[in-house]
Amino acid sequence: MGKRIDLRSDTVTQPTEQMRRLMAKAEVGDDVYGEDPTVRRLEELAADIFGKEAALFVTSGTQGNQVAIAAWAERGDEVIVEAESHVFYYEVAGISVIAGAQARPIAGRMGAMDPEEVRRAIRPRDIHQPRTGLICVENTHNRAGGTVLPIEILQATASVAREAGVPLHMDGARIWNAVVASGIDERTWASHVDSLQFCLSKGLGAPVGSVVVGSWSMIDRARVWRKRLGGGLRQAGVLAAPCIWALTNMVERLAEDHANAKLLAERLANMQGIAVKLDTVQTNIVLAELTDAHTTADAFIAELAKNGVLATAFGPRTVRFVTHKDVSQAEVETAVDRIHETIKEFGAA
Amino acid sequence: MGKRIDLRSDTVTQPTEQMRRLMAKAEVGDDVYGEDPTVRRLEELAADIFGKEAALFVTSGTQGNQVAIAAWAERGDEVIVEAESHVFYYEVAGISVIAGAQARPIAGRMGAMDPEEVRRAIRPRDIHQPRTGLICVENTHNRAGGTVLPIEILQATASVAREAGVPLHMDGARIWNAVVASGIDERTWASHVDSLQFCLSKGLGAPVGSVVVGSWSMIDRARVWRKRLGGGLRQAGVLAAPCIWALTNMVERLAEDHANAKLLAERLANMQGIAVKLDTVQTNIVLAELTDAHTTADAFIAELAKNGVLATAFGPRTVRFVTHKDVSQAEVETAVDRIHETIKEFGAA
Amino acid sequence: MGKRIDLRSDTVTQPTEQMRRLMAKAEVGDDVYGEDPTVRRLEELAADIFGKEAALFVTSGTQGNQVAIAAWAERGDEVIVEAESHVFYYEVAGISVIAGAQARPIAGRMGAMDPEEVRRAIRPRDIHQPRTGLICVENTHNRAGGTVLPIEILQATASVAREAGVPLHMDGARIWNAVVASGIDERTWASHVDSLQFCLSKGLGAPVGSVVVGSWSMIDRARVWRKRLGGGLRQAGVLAAPCIWALTNMVERLAEDHANAKLLAERLANMQGIAVKLDTVQTNIVLAELTDAHTTADAFIAELAKNGVLATAFGPRTVRFVTHKDVSQAEVETAVDRIHETIKEFGAA
Amino acid sequence: MGKRIDLRSDTVTQPTEQMRRLMAKAEVGDDVYGEDPTVRRLEELAADIFGKEAALFVTSGTQGNQVAIAAWAERGDEVIVEAESHVFYYEVAGISVIAGAQARPIAGRMGAMDPEEVRRAIRPRDIHQPRTGLICVENTHNRAGGTVLPIEILQATASVAREAGVPLHMDGARIWNAVVASGIDERTWASHVDSLQFCLSKGLGAPVGSVVVGSWSMIDRARVWRKRLGGGLRQAGVLAAPCIWALTNMVERLAEDHANAKLLAERLANMQGIAVKLDTVQTNIVLAELTDAHTTADAFIAELAKNGVLATAFGPRTVRFVTHKDVSQAEVETAVDRIHETIKEFGAA
Repeated sequence: MGKRIDLRSDTVTQPTEQMRRLMAKAEVGDDVYGEDPTVRRLEELAADIFGKEAALFVTSGTQGNQVAIAAWAERGDEVIVEAESHVFYYEVAGISVIAGAQARPIAGRMGAMDPEEVRRAIRPRDIHQPRTGLICVENTHNRAGGTVLPIEILQATASVAREAGVPLHMDGARIWNAVVASGIDERTWASHVDSLQFCLSKGLGAPVGSVVVGSWSMIDRARVWRKRLGGGLRQAGVLAAPCIWALTNMVERLAEDHANAKLLAERLANMQGIAVKLDTVQTNIVLAELTDAHTTADAFIAELAKNGVLATAFGPRTVRFVTHKDVSQAEVETAVDRIHETIKEFGAA
Repeated sequence: MGKRIDLRSDTVTQPTEQMRRLMAKAEVGDDVYGEDPTVRRLEELAADIFGKEAALFVTSGTQGNQVAIAAWAERGDEVIVEAESHVFYYEVAGISVIAGAQARPIAGRMGAMDPEEVRRAIRPRDIHQPRTGLICVENTHNRAGGTVLPIEILQATASVAREAGVPLHMDGARIWNAVVASGIDERTWASHVDSLQFCLSKGLGAPVGSVVVGSWSMIDRARVWRKRLGGGLRQAGVLAAPCIWALTNMVERLAEDHANAKLLAERLANMQGIAVKLDTVQTNIVLAELTDAHTTADAFIAELAKNGVLATAFGPRTVRFVTHKDVSQAEVETAVDRIHETIKEFGAA
Repeated sequence: MGKRIDLRSDTVTQPTEQMRRLMAKAEVGDDVYGEDPTVRRLEELAADIFGKEAALFVTSGTQGNQVAIAAWAERGDEVIVEAESHVFYYEVAGISVIAGAQARPIAGRMGAMDPEEVRRAIRPRDIHQPRTGLICVENTHNRAGGTVLPIEILQATASVAREAGVPLHMDGARIWNAVVASGIDERTWASHVDSLQFCLSKGLGAPVGSVVVGSWSMIDRARVWRKRLGGGLRQAGVLAAPCIWALTNMVERLAEDHANAKLLAERLANMQGIAVKLDTVQTNIVLAELTDAHTTADAFIAELAKNGVLATAFGPRTVRFVTHKDVSQAEVETAVDRIHETIKEFGAA
Repeated sequence: MGKRIDLRSDTVTQPTEQMRRLMAKAEVGDDVYGEDPTVRRLEELAADIFGKEAALFVTSGTQGNQVAIAAWAERGDEVIVEAESHVFYYEVAGISVIAGAQARPIAGRMGAMDPEEVRRAIRPRDIHQPRTGLICVENTHNRAGGTVLPIEILQATASVAREAGVPLHMDGARIWNAVVASGIDERTWASHVDSLQFCLSKGLGAPVGSVVVGSWSMIDRARVWRKRLGGGLRQAGVLAAPCIWALTNMVERLAEDHANAKLLAERLANMQGIAVKLDTVQTNIVLAELTDAHTTADAFIAELAKNGVLATAFGPRTVRFVTHKDVSQAEVETAVDRIHETIKEFGAA
């Protein structure tokens, strides 16, 4: 059937040869002592790109979000999150366990919470109620299909936060896709939030690594939390080196992934048995609904895998496809054919 | 203006003379050693009424819910709750702090979650996702306006829970109102859940006290949690004695409170400037919407207090009135007049 | 064998007739709304006696300690405690669960930590180490045998705390015994600490209740924690009324309990098979060591109970006796005889 | 003054050329999906070396210990630890924050707790007391000076644990030094414990990485905790590759570090102004006491750094030196001279 085409996630991306070379020759030191020059360089670069005072290298987006949340929220606080956001949905209840805070999910529209609903969710001072300690947004929004957070919604949310004296954190695991798709630069996005986490190990292809940016004092607190979670590494420069390269060389090419996702979405939208909301296909993610009542996402994905395409179940009938640097346009076209075959097999059954 | 009429909550009810007499002559012992005969009698009575193996006296509904949740859920689990339920809304993020679990709120219809939505919210086995450790329902539902949980919804929710192997807890702080309003007895309600918490200090008028009922092993675990929260009391029989009396003598009269609430609701529904959803008025709570865009609940309540009626803000324009044993039908009628005057004052402004 | 003599703890004390009368006629309100006049009166009285700004009624010494610790320490802080202190030994790991802080036990001499050891235990600023967030002392010290904390040690500990900018909390569950035994008044003790918890349900005989005193801001934070633990009560005045009476009428008579303890200790010290460190017998607690290698505390206590005296095991060979208002001098003498008989039974075996 | 000699820790070791080459060409996959072949190979190798069913790659010793502790202990349990152990002293109160458990420190002799003291510290079943959920030992013991845990003490501790039904975890961050110094192999050490954590980034020189070994079910629980802490990595094979090499090529050479430590210790022991307990110098750590009352460790270390030798303060007058692969015997001898000069400077002052 030819090479397996892996559209499960952009986390599966392999490091490039250049990244491997940089890793091998990275200048390193003990980062727990603050002495790894490559980690320092990455942190300074990240802070500069986003126009923030300071940055902290972490081992994953989950760790970046969790140390940021714990740095802001006190135990017993409430954290406003989008109902399908990664911090609420996919971080194993970390907000409750680590920060000891209660997540307050608000259902968004294409991943974006209505700022007025956020305003109403901020708790009044009342002995029965937790204090609202943080608001989180996600950009791009994974479960909504890689949607870009509209900048005017972010601005309005930031106003709500500021008026209430509540900090605002952005889970920007895929902020690079938002930058490329919207043409809005990193500093502009970051100017509206108090902290932001981004990943180098997704679309940008670095093997491991995420970074939190924020003020000096926030990053100091996050650093203590990172140590507590066991995220204080030794010669971490070997990971930071490919991250620096990813940051400076891999962003612009995300446009190809977006074009491939659009191509894939349009082809799928035309297939019988599959529905795609094309307006959510703004970056590198395509959510496909299986419209046949007898076909579950799990069964479809298992069959599709046999036909050489890997995807992820995102609901009982929802399948997620993610384009990335290790899948070419030609492979996307091959994938379309294989998906078509698979859907026909199910239709025939 | 005459006597102040307090419709803020049934928690303001004063103990009766009989309760005070029983308190004064209660036989007591050290309940931490399990030697208070009056507490034991209350716990046995409660277990019997609800048809459960065991019971535990606690100092509040919040403590009852929290020890039950911590007895069921492991840290890092997820607990499915109704989005406006007391455990999520009014217990100061206790689920996160005490059990270390993540609340997963599902918006209900008149306080009742759709069992199919509950089913969909139960997490699959996945390394990114918390385990679903508990489902909580509330009956009657405070923020929905004292609504009774439809028994068929409870049954369906119990099926969902059983199939998934997830325990089901009922916050029955006002279960007595549900019993009286529905004619469905305590054992029937309790037969569908693994644990249930009820309060004696609300409509039933005892000064202090709630009870959790469940299996022996669950109550054993809850007892350890009660100790940890400082809820292990010494001569607690002085509180338990009026609770026993409340349990055996104060339930039936709740019908009067329900009639008074209905009376109040109907009168308010006829007033200009106030809207009442009459179908939610099933027990002793009336939620009134202020329909004038310029009148906030806070301002209205402050003015109303000057006119001799106390109520509670339940939203930007929502006012809650609660009837109880210390407010007679005549007083409810007086309250209606005062509310009418107050609404006119605002209308004139 | 005559009446059972209960020397297990002063927590078993029964409320007096006067307390029962006051309970029955207490003026009450809803204390969650801050409207219970009797609770308010108790809190004002307590604050005044200890010379602190504010006070908070709680349901137990454990709850008082836990809300105080959580009010001071942040999640991830370290709390310095004496190695055999109640907060570490008998509060079911509450410091870790509720405050999310790490207890750092320091072994004391007769219950008193060496202030220089406390100083050395305060953590330096270091990314690997928790911040020292609180120091706790216990006075009188239960497991050390009811010993009074030497005031000069408290002063030196307070200096250490102040220099390090770390708050100091006193678990004064039995502070009244310290006051009576030392002649040092409540304000003097309290002047050296930032918060103090005391119990009314031990030697003073109230059925239920403890109080935390501290600054306005600390008590505000503790109040939120009390709500979270389910310690916010409704008509709590029924408990507060006997507490007020206990506070104003039951303190001086503790001298009798101390005399009885001394009597008991001296008699036991003269018995073969029992050793008592007389210098630790400063208040109402006597720790007796069984010197026969074949006699365990558990077995001895079981046998002694058959002979009509109740005591508590405090170690493999250590038995604790506590004198209190419900045991007269004559009963102590009877207890001595029964203990003597019991020890002879074991000796004969 | 020549090259700086860094004796602060074996964590500062630089990866070898061979490690860098392996990193660059490592076969990798997405380890969150369990698809990184190099990580799998490392985990299988580790499980095999220690004779356990399963293994889990983590980013640090702290993370390894914390996920192991959380996998064993329930919230509110107590964990017995040595008073100067890394898990208690240097993991930022992680036991309380992450597992929600209370550490119970027992002072050891040269890092080894007396098994009888451990037995006595196991809690009886009592409503006031936490359950003992885990016992931790450390081998070699860092703060005791790199001492090897005597195998007969480990055996006796394991018996105590087994009888009480309490699991036993070993923090074997430097287990390799124990293996080399004692001649007792990995499987023998591991046979006495239920789980064990070891580091590749200390003496063995890998840039980043530790591994937990245990039963399948324990490792499954630990894996969920690792995800919660953000330790689930993507192409982690780039870190695992040098770890495999370290595991198979770097252990035996630790004997050189031990010889260098012995040399250093003996020279220091002969210097005026420095005391060394030679019996604790069993592996690669030397603890030196400054005997002059006016010389603090902080001041000495600052001066010593100017003279070209780096060390760590381990107490007010205690200095720790650690030998490792990046310091030769000749450099140790140079370091001795520089230490001597420095101590003379202080003596002269």
